[in-house]
Amino acid sequence: MNPPKTDARRHHDPEVRGFASDNYAGAHPEVLAALALANSGHQVSYGEDAYTDHLQQVMRSHFGATAEVFPVFNGTGANVVALQALTDRWGAVICAESAHINVDEGGAPERMGGLKLLTVPTPDGKLTPELIDRQAYGWEDEHRAMPQVVSITQNTELGTIYTPEEIRAICEHAHAHGMKVHLDGARIANAAASLNVPMRAFTNAVGVDVLSFGGTKNGALFGEAVVVLNQDAVSHMKHLRKLSMQLASKMRFVSVQLEALLAKDLWLRNASHSNEMAQRLAEGVRAVHGVEILHPVQANAVFARLPHDVSERLQKRYRFYFWDEAAGDVRWMCSFDTTEDDVDGFVAALKEEMAR
Amino acid sequence: MNPPKTDARRHHDPEVRGFASDNYAGAHPEVLAALALANSGHQVSYGEDAYTDHLQQVMRSHFGATAEVFPVFNGTGANVVALQALTDRWGAVICAESAHINVDEGGAPERMGGLKLLTVPTPDGKLTPELIDRQAYGWEDEHRAMPQVVSITQNTELGTIYTPEEIRAICEHAHAHGMKVHLDGARIANAAASLNVPMRAFTNAVGVDVLSFGGTKNGALFGEAVVVLNQDAVSHMKHLRKLSMQLASKMRFVSVQLEALLAKDLWLRNASHSNEMAQRLAEGVRAVHGVEILHPVQANAVFARLPHDVSERLQKRYRFYFWDEAAGDVRWMCSFDTTEDDVDGFVAALKEEMAR
Amino acid sequence: MNPPKTDARRHHDPEVRGFASDNYAGAHPEVLAALALANSGHQVSYGEDAYTDHLQQVMRSHFGATAEVFPVFNGTGANVVALQALTDRWGAVICAESAHINVDEGGAPERMGGLKLLTVPTPDGKLTPELIDRQAYGWEDEHRAMPQVVSITQNTELGTIYTPEEIRAICEHAHAHGMKVHLDGARIANAAASLNVPMRAFTNAVGVDVLSFGGTKNGALFGEAVVVLNQDAVSHMKHLRKLSMQLASKMRFVSVQLEALLAKDLWLRNASHSNEMAQRLAEGVRAVHGVEILHPVQANAVFARLPHDVSERLQKRYRFYFWDEAAGDVRWMCSFDTTEDDVDGFVAALKEEMAR
Amino acid sequence: MNPPKTDARRHHDPEVRGFASDNYAGAHPEVLAALALANSGHQVSYGEDAYTDHLQQVMRSHFGATAEVFPVFNGTGANVVALQALTDRWGAVICAESAHINVDEGGAPERMGGLKLLTVPTPDGKLTPELIDRQAYGWEDEHRAMPQVVSITQNTELGTIYTPEEIRAICEHAHAHGMKVHLDGARIANAAASLNVPMRAFTNAVGVDVLSFGGTKNGALFGEAVVVLNQDAVSHMKHLRKLSMQLASKMRFVSVQLEALLAKDLWLRNASHSNEMAQRLAEGVRAVHGVEILHPVQANAVFARLPHDVSERLQKRYRFYFWDEAAGDVRWMCSFDTTEDDVDGFVAALKEEMAR
Repeated sequence: MNPPKTDARRHHDPEVRGFASDNYAGAHPEVLAALALANSGHQVSYGEDAYTDHLQQVMRSHFGATAEVFPVFNGTGANVVALQALTDRWGAVICAESAHINVDEGGAPERMGGLKLLTVPTPDGKLTPELIDRQAYGWEDEHRAMPQVVSITQNTELGTIYTPEEIRAICEHAHAHGMKVHLDGARIANAAASLNVPMRAFTNAVGVDVLSFGGTKNGALFGEAVVVLNQDAVSHMKHLRKLSMQLASKMRFVSVQLEALLAKDLWLRNASHSNEMAQRLAEGVRAVHGVEILHPVQANAVFARLPHDVSERLQKRYRFYFWDEAAGDVRWMCSFDTTEDDVDGFVAALKEEMAR
Repeated sequence: MNPPKTDARRHHDPEVRGFASDNYAGAHPEVLAALALANSGHQVSYGEDAYTDHLQQVMRSHFGATAEVFPVFNGTGANVVALQALTDRWGAVICAESAHINVDEGGAPERMGGLKLLTVPTPDGKLTPELIDRQAYGWEDEHRAMPQVVSITQNTELGTIYTPEEIRAICEHAHAHGMKVHLDGARIANAAASLNVPMRAFTNAVGVDVLSFGGTKNGALFGEAVVVLNQDAVSHMKHLRKLSMQLASKMRFVSVQLEALLAKDLWLRNASHSNEMAQRLAEGVRAVHGVEILHPVQANAVFARLPHDVSERLQKRYRFYFWDEAAGDVRWMCSFDTTEDDVDGFVAALKEEMAR
Repeated sequence: MNPPKTDARRHHDPEVRGFASDNYAGAHPEVLAALALANSGHQVSYGEDAYTDHLQQVMRSHFGATAEVFPVFNGTGANVVALQALTDRWGAVICAESAHINVDEGGAPERMGGLKLLTVPTPDGKLTPELIDRQAYGWEDEHRAMPQVVSITQNTELGTIYTPEEIRAICEHAHAHGMKVHLDGARIANAAASLNVPMRAFTNAVGVDVLSFGGTKNGALFGEAVVVLNQDAVSHMKHLRKLSMQLASKMRFVSVQLEALLAKDLWLRNASHSNEMAQRLAEGVRAVHGVEILHPVQANAVFARLPHDVSERLQKRYRFYFWDEAAGDVRWMCSFDTTEDDVDGFVAALKEEMAR
Repeated sequence: MNPPKTDARRHHDPEVRGFASDNYAGAHPEVLAALALANSGHQVSYGEDAYTDHLQQVMRSHFGATAEVFPVFNGTGANVVALQALTDRWGAVICAESAHINVDEGGAPERMGGLKLLTVPTPDGKLTPELIDRQAYGWEDEHRAMPQVVSITQNTELGTIYTPEEIRAICEHAHAHGMKVHLDGARIANAAASLNVPMRAFTNAVGVDVLSFGGTKNGALFGEAVVVLNQDAVSHMKHLRKLSMQLASKMRFVSVQLEALLAKDLWLRNASHSNEMAQRLAEGVRAVHGVEILHPVQANAVFARLPHDVSERLQKRYRFYFWDEAAGDVRWMCSFDTTEDDVDGFVAALKEEMAR
């Protein structure tokens, strides 16, 4: 599994890491090994294979006996399939203004799903029953796209985390109004690690109907899944996945990755590690005068504000992104392969650039 | 790369193979090895990585200096992205009634792309200028979705293959009417191997504008690409890929697979082998009295007609599908990992079942 | 209601009529008078007005106590609203290749409704259970858009008419397979007049679930309606009509037109008259040597084949369209305002041009 | 044109008027008379008639020699056709959060047009270059639906009016960023009357590219139009109108209504009158202690805040709507047929109810 570092076919330096995104990382070696395990021989395509079957059992060990998993290719695909499943043709989706489905999916929900998003500004990326009520009305009014789903992200795009009680309140509120709840769990493992609870504690245990489960940022090469937690909320998921161009022919190679993460504790090890690295990073940064940490560091992201020129010099040494360039806000992401040395080196570099 | 066969985490018997589909096969070991090579360290996500960059060069070595590659997840995705790129909102696509986009994509072209397909029945899955003319009219008529693209499949869903001259005639005819040409190349490697010409000989050399390049059936785990051959025919491919939910975050893992196939001759070895196995199979079958081969065997598919009960007994020994169950027609597919023993064993079994 | 013929604001000669289409005609004077009746004062918009309420009762007198009417603007709108209502996101519609929804709606069903049409060639524009079966399969197959509706046109685009028994057979067949039946009744009045039965006799009495009711060709200025015959087949029609851009604000002016047609016998007088004119035309044409009538003349259309140059000369005297220009086929339509003199003059002209 | 008031076929009392909406009103008698004028005889359908041709000339007299008019059925249809014409498949539309396209079209822009709306909160329904900039960025970013159009409403949904200079600033800003400008002119006549300038003064004269022209609220039975002011901004409008289900077969009856409004000064008389009635109403209301007028009264709408119970009692005497029921905000609309007596009676009733 470990080709020589000097292999001419390798086009990159595997020692270089940065803080740009958790999808800059590669795959965890155990995930890669699982692919080899699932390879060779013939397996029925399109999801009738033994690995998808096993993944079903593994998912149920996490999310309960009625959960059903539908592996897909990527997070946008998972979200658009899930939201189509939860809405009628006249339905709309309430979400935070900062939600990935609203700002980072190229209009796929609207263009591919025909979905209207009813957005609400939030201070920290988190919805509340009160914030939901700003869009939750008019179900009888044909002039308004009908609010049928509340979509939340755990952990949020701002690195904040809902408590199970907060999600329970949202679900109860949504259900009381006849709406379903979708959870975009692109980084669900980080949330569970941070909350120190099983994933079910803030999903099906508190009323979430459908989950977009994220494998890629947790250490897979690619691979996400729609996990149906409430079977009454949806139907014909396979048809929706197919017509949404998210059906893998050799599905065993998606499923075995998710199994590798979830069958034992790899998902948790990876998530805990990236969270810890973010804590180490935040601690280091707090010691640097002139750099402000912007949101509670609850998962694997650190949002900070610092002088623009410092960021620019630092970016020449480590890759990372501006979050709000005008304000001088940046985002630093840790991933499963971030090392303590990476963090310490980065903090040292930050100190140096601040001192110039 | 080769885990012990008795590994408890392996859920399938890697020795079992059948003739159901070339996507029942796994990945070629060289493809799997390439994934390991591309792993570790950080690479820019969403296609700005070194492997996608190299794939670009590799694709150009096959399709000429102006070709541009856009890796995607699967064939339906490739087709729908390509066809959206080639049409206006009022456009329609002329294709064979048997085309994959018409019969096997769950309505994705219509539902996701808003595309109307103008279909033509064909004897062998192949369009001709004359057949195209049955739908190529009414460009000025607002009551008709405007024919803007001719989409052909090479090799076709019936295992037949267009000659370069046939495709040239289609392209000239389409272009003369202001239409573009899309080629669904889910099995393009098999066609090139069968014709014994480079892939460019029946694509950009004869006027194809955009190609859906198929890697999965050629030995990848997953991974296809839209290859733009005529830059004037399209624009904003990256936006279209994203909004069509086909943008991989860790794209290096798509690109390196396609590179592994295409950088040297793996694509051709795999395709030639599966074609040869189909020839061997056809030869064997022809010697079995009472079994009729239905279409010219030009690539890796053999279509045959045999008594229904024989097929049913045979299916208990080898997986394969009915193509037209009422007529007794079946499809037998060979793949890169089909062995001579597989074929010979299958033919022997066919003989036995016919003799009962 | 009758402005002086020399009114400078009149831009056309009201004495000129042709045989091009029944929508070349204007509105029946009684329909126009009804608009004046409904005018003045304030009425609740968007369908909560007294005229829409009365139309509801009128429609029920024709289609039974459970019928529900949703006035819309035009036939394409009615069809696309109805078909969306009858399908899930994964649904498809079986129809004749010659159906208006397939050939004359600019791709609206696909582009606006996301609907895949599964077409069947027919000899005379009419589906049968056997023809339906060519597309009615694969409900469990996610790779196929699911056939959920059979859509028929009465009378057909070729001027032919289903008997009530024929429609009953289609409905029973469709329902037995879990499909619903939509009837595009753009010229439903002509069919009823021709069959000499109430409209219900070949709609709800035999199992049609949803009807597109056509007012425009029957003598309205504009105005069609989706009529739901089976309430269990659909829901949220008002939402679907609105999001499909078919909700009239001053709906009283749509509803009162349909009421004017349907409250007494205007719909039948208009339809019977245009049918009779087509019979008179067909009789006259049959006496002209060298002109072949192509389909049974059952409603208000006459399809004929004659020498191309004759058609061209005749078109300089009377407007009409080629149906299949290559074959020399033309379509002659009669409308509620076609006169016996119009027909006789046209036949005389045809004779003259044939004799040249 | 004036049927006896006691006509049994009349289902409403033509003397009753309220302040609910300008589309509660009927049609102006001159518009109705124009329909009779255009009736009788045959005219080519789908827009090739003499009335649509004349409308073209009339529109050019208002909007300049390069304007091109495309009559449609309703405002939602006009907006969705226009916005589709101005965007690529990857495009998005910047608009005020309060815009009709965002809050009152049942999701038609998203569902039918596949359009993402990028909304901005505004104090008074009006965008500014600064407000536009909150959404105008990221043109190169495939993760973001590309801002390609700024859509403004004149007069706005809050009854406020842009000056020509304000619109010029928006157009210059939009064009400088490569975006086009759409103006939703459902009540454009009221704006022109209020500003006392020709309609062109705040549309093509200042850079608006495409206009949704509103006839219904100005005194038509129904009938709006997309008016293309910048021919370079769009193409294939007829195809887009048809596939958007907005093509009238007997188009003469749409066109002649718009001609009746626009050929002379009926449009202005109607708009001026309704504006004046709103001023009279505002004046009357200002004299009533305890009722607060909320926005500048610039057109035919008066927004007011008053005790909830007073509104409820008043609604039993005159129809009108709450705008924000929780806040006690109501909207009172005047229309072309509102009389001085209507206004005075309403103000008197308001006084009475306030005094209880």
